[in-house]
Amino acid sequence: MAVSGELLSEYKKLMEKVKNIVIFQSAMSVLHWDMETKMPPKGIMLRSQQMALLSQIGHRMMIDPEIGRLIEKIMSHPNYESLSELQKRNVYLTKKAYDEQTKLPEELVVETARQQTITTDVWKKAKAAKNFSMFKPELEKLFELKKKAAEILMEVKQTPTPYDALIDIFEPKMTSEMITKIFNELKDGLISIMKKCESAPKKPETSFLKRRVPIDIQRKISKELARFTGYDIEYKEAGGRIDETEHPFTTGYYHDVRVTTHYYEDNWASSVFSVLHEIGHARYEQNLPSEGIYQPVGTGWYIHSDGKFCS
Amino acid sequence: MAVSGELLSEYKKLMEKVKNIVIFQSAMSVLHWDMETKMPPKGIMLRSQQMALLSQIGHRMMIDPEIGRLIEKIMSHPNYESLSELQKRNVYLTKKAYDEQTKLPEELVVETARQQTITTDVWKKAKAAKNFSMFKPELEKLFELKKKAAEILMEVKQTPTPYDALIDIFEPKMTSEMITKIFNELKDGLISIMKKCESAPKKPETSFLKRRVPIDIQRKISKELARFTGYDIEYKEAGGRIDETEHPFTTGYYHDVRVTTHYYEDNWASSVFSVLHEIGHARYEQNLPSEGIYQPVGTGWYIHSDGKFCS
Repeated sequence: MAVSGELLSEYKKLMEKVKNIVIFQSAMSVLHWDMETKMPPKGIMLRSQQMALLSQIGHRMMIDPEIGRLIEKIMSHPNYESLSELQKRNVYLTKKAYDEQTKLPEELVVETARQQTITTDVWKKAKAAKNFSMFKPELEKLFELKKKAAEILMEVKQTPTPYDALIDIFEPKMTSEMITKIFNELKDGLISIMKKCESAPKKPETSFLKRRVPIDIQRKISKELARFTGYDIEYKEAGGRIDETEHPFTTGYYHDVRVTTHYYEDNWASSVFSVLHEIGHARYEQNLPSEGIYQPVGTGWYIHSDGKFCS
Repeated sequence: MAVSGELLSEYKKLMEKVKNIVIFQSAMSVLHWDMETKMPPKGIMLRSQQMALLSQIGHRMMIDPEIGRLIEKIMSHPNYESLSELQKRNVYLTKKAYDEQTKLPEELVVETARQQTITTDVWKKAKAAKNFSMFKPELEKLFELKKKAAEILMEVKQTPTPYDALIDIFEPKMTSEMITKIFNELKDGLISIMKKCESAPKKPETSFLKRRVPIDIQRKISKELARFTGYDIEYKEAGGRIDETEHPFTTGYYHDVRVTTHYYEDNWASSVFSVLHEIGHARYEQNLPSEGIYQPVGTGWYIHSDGKFCS
């Protein structure tokens, strides 16, 4: 059965709205990247206001009642089944996000964005100063805000606990029960390996891991790793870059996906594994099928993202 | 006469709207800075879409009919004269921007933002390749769009020519006639100085200007210039930074104002003068009286800015 013209036109209208949301969020992710890598430290208060305002605008784009009307029209259309699997998935993912976001009060979204920016900034300073008590009050504020959102989302998603509602954002349908099971198995397995190592007659030689490697050399190693993995950070058509942050992360979208690392002179392996790990994320994003661009299927992170999508 | 509570409340509502516009535009300026300094080259199409979308949103914020209603209410209020000079100036500048922006069609604003991004990108590549013909078609497209806006703004501002309407954006009430007069005087003066130099018995010794200075050394010179001028780019409370672009510029707001320069190994003076020039802009922005923040009086650029406010 061919897709009817009316249905397809509603679908296209919906995807046009989603496209703007995706582009908007990709812009926010640049601001987040800048905050972590390049922003002069004094800029933090202005940045937290920018992030709060953009979150408000992004939230309003997402809860636009026209999106609700289009979803309703498409899903109740007699020819709905004639949509392709990919189209149906896009509608499903948009509906999921719409249903969730419309339940979150705007003040909570805005306040969370503002607090996230401040908490991240204080965390950076506290980590560098190895001083948890500096960080604790700001973490608590953010925790309270996330708890409020989790309690609301628990109702919407019908999850057994608020935490399950948050896990579902990053890994749909994953539960804390399943995670506990996986982690317990992993723990048992790891402990048994460690015990074997400890009781072995000959200890592994690990001193080379602590060999001092100047940071400039480590930067060159990162560049080589990028070459090796095909993550272009240096040529005319480069779609990536490597910068330095307190904690490594990846952010970006299709043609502009950036990773970060952290160099320790006495722990070169830390950056090597970070760079490889983050490039894994980045190459995944860069190699998403181009036909999914600006659509929910083409973004693992598009709806709940505050810019930073993984670390 | 004391300002009446009602009038003050309308004024505050108006300034709240303006504050959001200013914060929004300061976020756009970060995206612009990123595009010029750090963005992986492949990101240009996404960036042009981001800038187009953000321009659309910013334009809608500016032409919000509520802004028009508030201005009308404030200016026709019997106690209007009781506002302070600063408050009246804020209302005047908001009205000026509102009157202009409401006349510009949204499609023109969006298309200009998109074309500006693309034109800047092509210009950079063409300049590096010393190939004007690469740049020309994109420049022409942008020129046509700016001409359309200028013709509309000429009507609004009642200027004698479209170009005068554009000059007024950067230097209110300046005219092309006055500029022509100033430049002609300058030309005559400069030519007479040059003639004197040429006919002097001893030529000035200028070869030191062409002495090769490695770029790493030039970067250190920039840092020293920043220290000398009190432009903090290195300490915990730094509010600035120096990066490298095809052409130097300054962008930012109060606590986060960034400059750029361009190093030529065989022309160290170019960067020295650029850095000093741009730091002049930056220190001006950073030292604006803090009571004007987020208000029209606290922003030379706030209304028509596409992020890049001077070069």
